[in-house]
Amino acid sequence: MAEGSPKQLFIGVDLGGTKILAGVFNPQLKLIATAKCSTKADRGPKPVMERIVRTIRDAVDEADQDMKLVKGIGIGAPGSIDSEEGRVIFSPNMPGWEDIHLKKELEKQLNVPIFVENDCNACALGVYVAELGSKPRHMVGIFLGTGIGSGIILDGKPFSGFNRTAGEIGHMVLEVGGPKCGCGNKGCFEALASRSAIFRRIQAAVKDGQKTMLVDMLGTDLDDLRSGDLRKALRKGDKLVEKVIEEAAEYTGIAVGNIINFLNPEYIVLGGGVIDALQDEMMSIIVETAKDYAMPGTFKGVEIIASRLGDHAGITGAAALARESSKSS
Amino acid sequence: MAEGSPKQLFIGVDLGGTKILAGVFNPQLKLIATAKCSTKADRGPKPVMERIVRTIRDAVDEADQDMKLVKGIGIGAPGSIDSEEGRVIFSPNMPGWEDIHLKKELEKQLNVPIFVENDCNACALGVYVAELGSKPRHMVGIFLGTGIGSGIILDGKPFSGFNRTAGEIGHMVLEVGGPKCGCGNKGCFEALASRSAIFRRIQAAVKDGQKTMLVDMLGTDLDDLRSGDLRKALRKGDKLVEKVIEEAAEYTGIAVGNIINFLNPEYIVLGGGVIDALQDEMMSIIVETAKDYAMPGTFKGVEIIASRLGDHAGITGAAALARESSKSS
Repeated sequence: MAEGSPKQLFIGVDLGGTKILAGVFNPQLKLIATAKCSTKADRGPKPVMERIVRTIRDAVDEADQDMKLVKGIGIGAPGSIDSEEGRVIFSPNMPGWEDIHLKKELEKQLNVPIFVENDCNACALGVYVAELGSKPRHMVGIFLGTGIGSGIILDGKPFSGFNRTAGEIGHMVLEVGGPKCGCGNKGCFEALASRSAIFRRIQAAVKDGQKTMLVDMLGTDLDDLRSGDLRKALRKGDKLVEKVIEEAAEYTGIAVGNIINFLNPEYIVLGGGVIDALQDEMMSIIVETAKDYAMPGTFKGVEIIASRLGDHAGITGAAALARESSKSS
Repeated sequence: MAEGSPKQLFIGVDLGGTKILAGVFNPQLKLIATAKCSTKADRGPKPVMERIVRTIRDAVDEADQDMKLVKGIGIGAPGSIDSEEGRVIFSPNMPGWEDIHLKKELEKQLNVPIFVENDCNACALGVYVAELGSKPRHMVGIFLGTGIGSGIILDGKPFSGFNRTAGEIGHMVLEVGGPKCGCGNKGCFEALASRSAIFRRIQAAVKDGQKTMLVDMLGTDLDDLRSGDLRKALRKGDKLVEKVIEEAAEYTGIAVGNIINFLNPEYIVLGGGVIDALQDEMMSIIVETAKDYAMPGTFKGVEIIASRLGDHAGITGAAALARESSKSS
């Protein structure tokens, strides 16, 4: 091993609905290498767990390191997570993920301590540890991707609530009787402003005969529509995409206003694939709308910002979790 | 003074949009006497403050006690409260209450330490201290009256957030584009399920030609409609009132579901005039709706109950606040 190489490594894994990202970190949480793999969530939990293991091994190999140096692995997983047992209770966007003992299964295969958190709690922790120098006491991270979730940091620590499932902001109803959500209810934030919701609205408008250059780019079915395509269309002046993104940003601003009114955190940090791709277009609308909906005294001094960690928020937070948990265990 | 009389007294005041209630408590928070006065909020802050002072003096007199024994007075006031400065930042349902230094003004007149909290935080604290024997770590109290607010108890302590204004659940948007709220926005919880919202719906339906026995009871204008009248009409089988109350209970259940999903407290306690009068009719709908909207793993074991403290939640919590704050000051 080269001189100066770390003697301890921590791994952070971000398990998403569409991809698995693993990062190898030194104890100062400097990122050494990453590996990525599609999730293939439709294959069900067991095959996905095999893909997690493979991605972890790939990341360690990519870093020219040995699994023996890995002291802990943190995993951010979507849905309701029992972080004490390392168990996925329920994950609406992942077929078959109900009562899955992720920690136990992966420890069997990797022989390294595994710590599981809700993916959004992991992202929030990553933003908090790596990005907010001023260390606000209360922060909520809201992440817009395939689904929508949030992580809550109170008094500097992740807050997980009674069942360790707090932060399910994606299923906060904003529009009673609104569009159907993956959870079975209607009008959830996630059914109004997630990538899936944005795509559904555009697809419906196209079926309805409305024009968008996305059809020229991707065909009438709009298969494989990505956040980046939306950004391209927007910057070329596509009116339909502009309208749909504006609406999603307004709904997000209303959700942010709700959280400021209810929990009054010092920072609201927005992240996730949708924000990473479209923050220039969405952030000013989100901030203005939140300001309109929050009570004046409650809004004063509250900062609403976009995370600059992008894709790395989840793996950074998961690695931070592994580092902290390994210390205390 | 009679033998065994307390040597120290604490007073709790509940300042509401329609009435002021003051209670005299012994150090064990046993209620000795109360006094009540209409708020006359439309007269503006100064006259209301004079009425608060008068109600406090009346309560002490009613208890056959002397103001000299009063060691602290807690006041629960509606709206956004800076509890450190004892200042009302903004109170949407009280005309002119913006930047009102309640603590300073009342200490001048009464010469007793005054502690000000948001009325709903005070109510939540009252429920927590006096009612929940099992002492859950996390509790949210939601209070439906003229307006709607909530108090948040985390790890056993009132949580007030960055600007000390947390708990403004009344302005959580549940129905984008819904009915107009006193705060200027649309579709807030308060505009859908407060006493004012319920009354507005019934009045609109009556204007629309729908039948209700409330018209026989109170005249076509439905002036002076109270929660108790709704209960009477309901128990006599009034279909319009039944429908409106059912809807209010459903909206409340959705709000409860949102809070369970986002913050995942162990207890949600409902109180306030609407719940006190209509809990038999509303609670089962609230619980069922919340269950439908909360994620299964998040809902598990969470208790949703009605407070039995009724009108006394606010004064009990305010007195508890005065007692605790006097200890530490």
